[in-house]
Amino acid sequence: MLLFFFLATLLGATTAQAGILYPTIIKKGEHLRPQSNARRSASHGGEPCKSWQFAIETHNLIDWKTVPNECELFVGRYLLGDQYAEDSKVVTREAFKFALSFNKSYDGFDIWIFAIDETALSNLPYYASRGFGTEPFDSKAFDKWVKSEDAPALSWTLKLYKQLQLLGYKIVFLTGRREYKREATHDNLLVAGYRNWEKLIHKPSDYNGSALDYKSDKRQQLVDAGYRIVGNVGDQWSDLLGTNHGTRNFKLPNPLYYVI
Amino acid sequence: MLLFFFLATLLGATTAQAGILYPTIIKKGEHLRPQSNARRSASHGGEPCKSWQFAIETHNLIDWKTVPNECELFVGRYLLGDQYAEDSKVVTREAFKFALSFNKSYDGFDIWIFAIDETALSNLPYYASRGFGTEPFDSKAFDKWVKSEDAPALSWTLKLYKQLQLLGYKIVFLTGRREYKREATHDNLLVAGYRNWEKLIHKPSDYNGSALDYKSDKRQQLVDAGYRIVGNVGDQWSDLLGTNHGTRNFKLPNPLYYVI
Repeated sequence: MLLFFFLATLLGATTAQAGILYPTIIKKGEHLRPQSNARRSASHGGEPCKSWQFAIETHNLIDWKTVPNECELFVGRYLLGDQYAEDSKVVTREAFKFALSFNKSYDGFDIWIFAIDETALSNLPYYASRGFGTEPFDSKAFDKWVKSEDAPALSWTLKLYKQLQLLGYKIVFLTGRREYKREATHDNLLVAGYRNWEKLIHKPSDYNGSALDYKSDKRQQLVDAGYRIVGNVGDQWSDLLGTNHGTRNFKLPNPLYYVI
Repeated sequence: MLLFFFLATLLGATTAQAGILYPTIIKKGEHLRPQSNARRSASHGGEPCKSWQFAIETHNLIDWKTVPNECELFVGRYLLGDQYAEDSKVVTREAFKFALSFNKSYDGFDIWIFAIDETALSNLPYYASRGFGTEPFDSKAFDKWVKSEDAPALSWTLKLYKQLQLLGYKIVFLTGRREYKREATHDNLLVAGYRNWEKLIHKPSDYNGSALDYKSDKRQQLVDAGYRIVGNVGDQWSDLLGTNHGTRNFKLPNPLYYVI
């Protein structure tokens, strides 16, 4: 009850209103009423961009082309602020706990798969100057950025990568970047701090299928070669759905773009 | 650049600091550094409970037993505030858009599956008085709550339910509630505003398997009976993963509990 009053106070109700706050939201035989815009205040109102983020990260919204213009600032604040790192920390820490508890074989065939863009490497320096995903994808400009080899590591991913290697896992990078980006990607991974990966799998330059099919096919080839996919870390649902997707999957946040 | 300064200001940097904010987060060859606790402030610091919510809703964290004690207030504010309704609105609106665009057969066999607890009906009145999921599940107390038939509809779900029926879809409720709760559930659905469902499928009282297997099995029976599962709406990943999970799935928020 004490908590209830504390809550009611936090929600902006006065002490006099507190007793009726809860019943105004839920009454017997009535519905949980979404409150109208008029009743929202900046401090605790429903934030449409937060809901957009919830919807994309849970794969409720699919095939979206660009970040809504009204969410540019929201996405920028998220990525440049602390929450992005905090979210990534919780995910990678959970991945590490799983890796630690998993009954490994120590024969060199227990692997973890990592995506590259927005998983191992961050393209935030590129997207920060281009409206945080609100602008349509510009493949020429992005190719130029990739060639610069300037993408920094996402530090929580790099930490997990090193922990997994210490535990005896091999790492396979499986990326949607096409073959012609192999050299730049290889060098960028090294500069960013990644070492001793088992494989770096690029998409054939003439591949026309979906990311989901491409990644499923490549994982099948890994399984056929005797590897066991213990974990799979990506920022896109197309990294984690499909076949042979690993004993456990880990979804890192990415509010910048959707890969089909 | 103007946006950048606006952003930097919002992130709490002074104009003098703004020029170095971005480079301190990302430098060539360096990592995106998660900022230490010491550098966080209440206004924009990484919020661990937000990250916990991200992790459970994206199925990075699985098999969790209770809400962390330190997140009781966070979960309470989320559920009693506007964001829960806003998130549900975005998801159900997306479901409606999909239902509208889907090429229906109008033969009575295009169905949508709905879960019940925290999808069709809200148990928030129950959980609000029990620490918002921080307390271990108490099946006796919960049974008593179910028997009260007092659970309100989640209003965005009810709206979607009615829209789908108007579009010509049939609705099948597929719930983890066991058979002995059928009468109370049936009556509660009516009181809450749900009408004319096609089926209400309860879990056999002696079923011992996982929710995922139970729901997959029941969906298989629906498919065998000629139904086409167009959409599937749930609050648990065990509602949406597995086999025959529907052409599109819709994941409503539920930070209260995890069903295995």
